[in-house]
Amino acid sequence: MHVSGTSPVTPVTVLGLGAMGSALATAFLDGGRPVTVWNRTPARADALAARGATRADDARQAVTAGELVVLCVLDHTAAYATLGAIGDALKGRTLVHLTNGTPAQAREFAEWATQRGARYVDGGIMAVPPMIGGPGSLVLYSGDRSALEEHRAALELLGAARWLGDDPGLASLYDLALLSGMYGLFAGYLHATALARTEGGSTREFTDELLIPWMTAMMSGFPDWARQIDSGEFGPASSPLAMQATAFVNLIEASTAQGVDPALMIPVQELLNRAVSAGLGDQDSPALATLLSGPGKEPVR
Amino acid sequence: MHVSGTSPVTPVTVLGLGAMGSALATAFLDGGRPVTVWNRTPARADALAARGATRADDARQAVTAGELVVLCVLDHTAAYATLGAIGDALKGRTLVHLTNGTPAQAREFAEWATQRGARYVDGGIMAVPPMIGGPGSLVLYSGDRSALEEHRAALELLGAARWLGDDPGLASLYDLALLSGMYGLFAGYLHATALARTEGGSTREFTDELLIPWMTAMMSGFPDWARQIDSGEFGPASSPLAMQATAFVNLIEASTAQGVDPALMIPVQELLNRAVSAGLGDQDSPALATLLSGPGKEPVR
Repeated sequence: MHVSGTSPVTPVTVLGLGAMGSALATAFLDGGRPVTVWNRTPARADALAARGATRADDARQAVTAGELVVLCVLDHTAAYATLGAIGDALKGRTLVHLTNGTPAQAREFAEWATQRGARYVDGGIMAVPPMIGGPGSLVLYSGDRSALEEHRAALELLGAARWLGDDPGLASLYDLALLSGMYGLFAGYLHATALARTEGGSTREFTDELLIPWMTAMMSGFPDWARQIDSGEFGPASSPLAMQATAFVNLIEASTAQGVDPALMIPVQELLNRAVSAGLGDQDSPALATLLSGPGKEPVR
Repeated sequence: MHVSGTSPVTPVTVLGLGAMGSALATAFLDGGRPVTVWNRTPARADALAARGATRADDARQAVTAGELVVLCVLDHTAAYATLGAIGDALKGRTLVHLTNGTPAQAREFAEWATQRGARYVDGGIMAVPPMIGGPGSLVLYSGDRSALEEHRAALELLGAARWLGDDPGLASLYDLALLSGMYGLFAGYLHATALARTEGGSTREFTDELLIPWMTAMMSGFPDWARQIDSGEFGPASSPLAMQATAFVNLIEASTAQGVDPALMIPVQELLNRAVSAGLGDQDSPALATLLSGPGKEPVR
């Protein structure tokens, strides 16, 4: 990924040196980029300075040193505070904003930054800090596409760079969507292993030999679910929701009897029951998708 | 799997011909076994009789015709009703009980059946009816191991046969554990795709290109989670629960703003908040496992 020698090497600025910001700065340094760093608490820059980063005295000086400015702080309040006192320093620069937030916050920040002359790209990092720069790291981007493409070589030092669209809110939206998928997976894992170990079995054996193969098999149905959801036409049921709702009572009852808190499974039961009440009892699981979106946001069919 | 000609072919009886019972009987017929069937509503046996099954007049006659008796009805009440009027016909026969239920119900049924002279095997089918007999079909078993092994060749016509232990409740316990894992996965999928499609994107593209690779990557951490859960020693956090709890607010807020019902994610948020209150804020996700089991059922460490 290091293009030094074959194209000009853009100086990069990283603002915010928490665990994630530090990992980002390290990946740019490892890729041979000149990196200027700044953090509200200056001591956080010590390790990076020792690896060759230039330490700026304030955020304005840091921004001025970079053509590509990467901002990754705790939240949007901290993001505005970081850039609020830098005057017109953003003008003509590309701001890649990787602070966690909502689509609405991203859109608002995009407006604020473009008013100050920045080319704005919002991003969602699908990795924990130790993964940055490694093969499993993915960063979602949306906003000013030409700015992203201009800096793609540098940004791919962080992980695979995936473009989602011009709306600066999209990176955050898809970031949160993927996170919600992950949290559902985690919830399933936690409940399943809690139940399995109530009789003293090995969690590792259950995980490796039964749960992962089973979840992998169940996930293989998702492309077909997606096709049904996109078309709005739901196929014949091999596992009707009414039957699932009936059987679900066993899951809650057995969990409680085995001393496992059923909290993570209760909303699934409620959704199955809602499906039956809504007349979807003879449909299969993908039809549950029609229950999660409010009437004003029904997916386009 | 068809052993006709190389070993004696055990006559099989299938009681209960709903979608699942019919699929089981079909798999035995396809494997060349002599199959006797019975169902409370006799018309359900028509298709199977046309494929070569023998139709019994009542449950007692059906049981008497088989050495291996497979029972798969709606619930345990129906199971007792089916076998309640057959006198001593179970004596010396192997009863493989595949009706959905809880571990406690399985243990109770095992006692009831062994008192009537049956060798009792309880089972949990990890497949929907169209999968029976196919490569992805798995059936969990527990109870009388020698009875299971004696009939393994026949039972493997239904799917891979996995032995879990002598306690007849284990098949049901692990069945429900795997189902809960699946339902968590489904909940994550449903929320993620609902959120992603609020801006009009293709669910299929999101599923294939982002969500499945992401969930697969997240699942690759589970063997290490399991190791931590089994040992009770939780490693250093790259994504501390306190930070996750803070960021989770965005997920709920953005979901609501985009018109997606956050119901499936609320208990995950509550669990993260409970973890922070319990002093686990600096731990990583696997430590959440310590919160799901009540004090009386704390996993053995």
